[in-house]
Amino acid sequence: MAHNAELISVGTELLLGNILNTDAQFLSRELSALGMNVFYQTVVGDNPERLRKAVDIAKSRADIIITTGGLGPTCDDLTKQTLAEAFGKQLVFHAESAERIKDYFEQNLHGAPMPENNLQQAMLPEGCVILQNDWGTAPGCIFEAGGCHVVMLPGPPRECQPMFYAHVAPYLRKLSEDTIRSRTLKLFGMGESAVEALLRDRMNALENPTLAPYAKTGEVELRITAKAASEDEAERLIDPVEREVRAILGDLVYGVNVGSLEEVVLALLKEKGLTLSCAESCTGGLIAKRLTDLPGASAAFKGGAVTYCNEAKHALLGVSETLLAEKGAVCAEVAEAMAEGARAVFGSDLAVSTTGVAGPDSDERGNPVGLVYVALATPSGTTCRELHLGQSRDRVRTTAAHHAFDLARRYLQGLPLEL
Amino acid sequence: MAHNAELISVGTELLLGNILNTDAQFLSRELSALGMNVFYQTVVGDNPERLRKAVDIAKSRADIIITTGGLGPTCDDLTKQTLAEAFGKQLVFHAESAERIKDYFEQNLHGAPMPENNLQQAMLPEGCVILQNDWGTAPGCIFEAGGCHVVMLPGPPRECQPMFYAHVAPYLRKLSEDTIRSRTLKLFGMGESAVEALLRDRMNALENPTLAPYAKTGEVELRITAKAASEDEAERLIDPVEREVRAILGDLVYGVNVGSLEEVVLALLKEKGLTLSCAESCTGGLIAKRLTDLPGASAAFKGGAVTYCNEAKHALLGVSETLLAEKGAVCAEVAEAMAEGARAVFGSDLAVSTTGVAGPDSDERGNPVGLVYVALATPSGTTCRELHLGQSRDRVRTTAAHHAFDLARRYLQGLPLEL
Repeated sequence: MAHNAELISVGTELLLGNILNTDAQFLSRELSALGMNVFYQTVVGDNPERLRKAVDIAKSRADIIITTGGLGPTCDDLTKQTLAEAFGKQLVFHAESAERIKDYFEQNLHGAPMPENNLQQAMLPEGCVILQNDWGTAPGCIFEAGGCHVVMLPGPPRECQPMFYAHVAPYLRKLSEDTIRSRTLKLFGMGESAVEALLRDRMNALENPTLAPYAKTGEVELRITAKAASEDEAERLIDPVEREVRAILGDLVYGVNVGSLEEVVLALLKEKGLTLSCAESCTGGLIAKRLTDLPGASAAFKGGAVTYCNEAKHALLGVSETLLAEKGAVCAEVAEAMAEGARAVFGSDLAVSTTGVAGPDSDERGNPVGLVYVALATPSGTTCRELHLGQSRDRVRTTAAHHAFDLARRYLQGLPLEL
Repeated sequence: MAHNAELISVGTELLLGNILNTDAQFLSRELSALGMNVFYQTVVGDNPERLRKAVDIAKSRADIIITTGGLGPTCDDLTKQTLAEAFGKQLVFHAESAERIKDYFEQNLHGAPMPENNLQQAMLPEGCVILQNDWGTAPGCIFEAGGCHVVMLPGPPRECQPMFYAHVAPYLRKLSEDTIRSRTLKLFGMGESAVEALLRDRMNALENPTLAPYAKTGEVELRITAKAASEDEAERLIDPVEREVRAILGDLVYGVNVGSLEEVVLALLKEKGLTLSCAESCTGGLIAKRLTDLPGASAAFKGGAVTYCNEAKHALLGVSETLLAEKGAVCAEVAEAMAEGARAVFGSDLAVSTTGVAGPDSDERGNPVGLVYVALATPSGTTCRELHLGQSRDRVRTTAAHHAFDLARRYLQGLPLEL
């Protein structure tokens, strides 16, 4: 029997829109990977009556309930109490957790006195498994009652995520029988509805594995998911579907089970012992930021120049002042000169560059929002793509950065650079 | 009577954790600002039975239901059909919307043929108000039935958000009677539990307005919310609470109703006619990226150097090779030299810099993860903060960037630079 998990995220700050519910995304992904169904996510505020109602609904349709949030020291953190009540349990003081909380404050806050309210976090449901929190103060817990597995995790992602991996994943793994495997093919260069139109007949015909597309800003993911008695068998079901999809989409597929284009680029650079730098105008640091989000980026990324004004394009990258004066910053020649300049000044094997109009307004020469030039400089020459990326500042910047990484990826894989 | 809105986000990609539910955050924030309660958010997959159940539960506890997602061209986009059924309505073909969808493809996709499945998006519930989509293909709609206002919006944020502002906010504004005003004080430099301990008695005593803290990575927000017959009256209720909080927290408060530290810094720079540049090592472009996320950044931001290797620190910023060889890249002297170098090369009035160990591993000199130096160079000298920011790469980078902005903010406001 497949398990049905339901996520309940507790926090008025979520209902007020002050924070993004990254925990729900994280847990959904991890539960899917464990072969658990997640049919519903619910968000409810720091209100015991409404939380209780959400728990009662979840009990009626799920056999695993995972809550995040509301375990903290503040007076509106009521998750443990409400869940204990819903399942007929008392809260009891847990001395060892209280000691850990005190220790945490001593070690991490360099002697600042611990606010007394933090000890409330050591009150836990009777008979629960306590989930030690080595990343913050609030311990989590798991108990089983009324045919339901109840898991409570702290809300801050930097605590929730390592605690899930350390304590919850091993617990859940013991509950599952079927093996579910997914393989995600990542695509760049074609929109979701065009991908769907190409694959629709196959998607409708497939039952196990299934094939489903997901759109992200400027990208599409295709997930192939198989259910089987063993991992090997699931993988064997997936293989021919992957081959079929690749035959249709060719080199638009930039990776399998990878996080992002930049991750693929970084891995290829390391594999080939090559280095990269960047020169950014309209993306304003986004390319460098995305590369350095990745641990270990320093092995292949030399650095970047964010040249947001023309003087900086000349001073740091050596772009000709005459060229800038005659053609302006938004043209293929400047993009190419920027990439070549970055390659020279950082001494890298490759360099990517962007220059364009991110908006909200067109530039002083009347170039429209969304016009972007992205270039790649290599030992064997420089290439530029002219792009028209629409009106949204965020989308223009994100997609321009994707194109820069796609140029580098195609070069490193020996593919044609044109889309 | 206050309205209770419930959000239903439709999409298996949310339940699989493939995307973040940014629509729920956006809509929650906007609904709060309109004085609407949001007591629950629900996420459900592309499954008509389970969506129907979620709608039935929402009908029983909310008088406004807003769905996002499932309006697209793919075969699992079933929101309109399911909602229409739940409220006893038929779907009818809307010729004008079909024309718009065709036009959109012609204008935005430069002549690529429109996949036929896109016309499914022109089927809409009978008697609904059609919400024209100028940002994509799927139109939204609103209808009223069974005492409930039902709003359907497309899922992609770049369509959902402008459509909310253009069509849904004006519709909802007509429904409200009470005026709710919120004022958010943003703090940098003190943790959530310390802020709560300082303000707890006041928070518990207050009823209208209310005062509530929200933690974000390295920051705390305090939201004061008042309900009154008019906006003026609500603002008058909020004023003394803001004064009280400011008296307690002093210059830790960096802004009121502002988005972020960088927004405050950019506004101050523009106000004073000053310019900024940055030199980033461990933050790797994040400071430049955050500044250029803001429209109009080019008025005050000259650019940045992402010097991820020592050679680049020397070549671009003129940091002494002897200093780098003797003390390594992670020290106050290098941070200061980087800031001064950026100030010189970009010709900016101010420059901020970061150098440190973002992790996951300590550096080759054994400096621990989380050790970061952040400096500010100004016409009247250079200052550096030594920071110990914990173990998480993401948190180290985010908080280091906060500190850089906080140094600039304090300088521009004439405050002491020490925390």
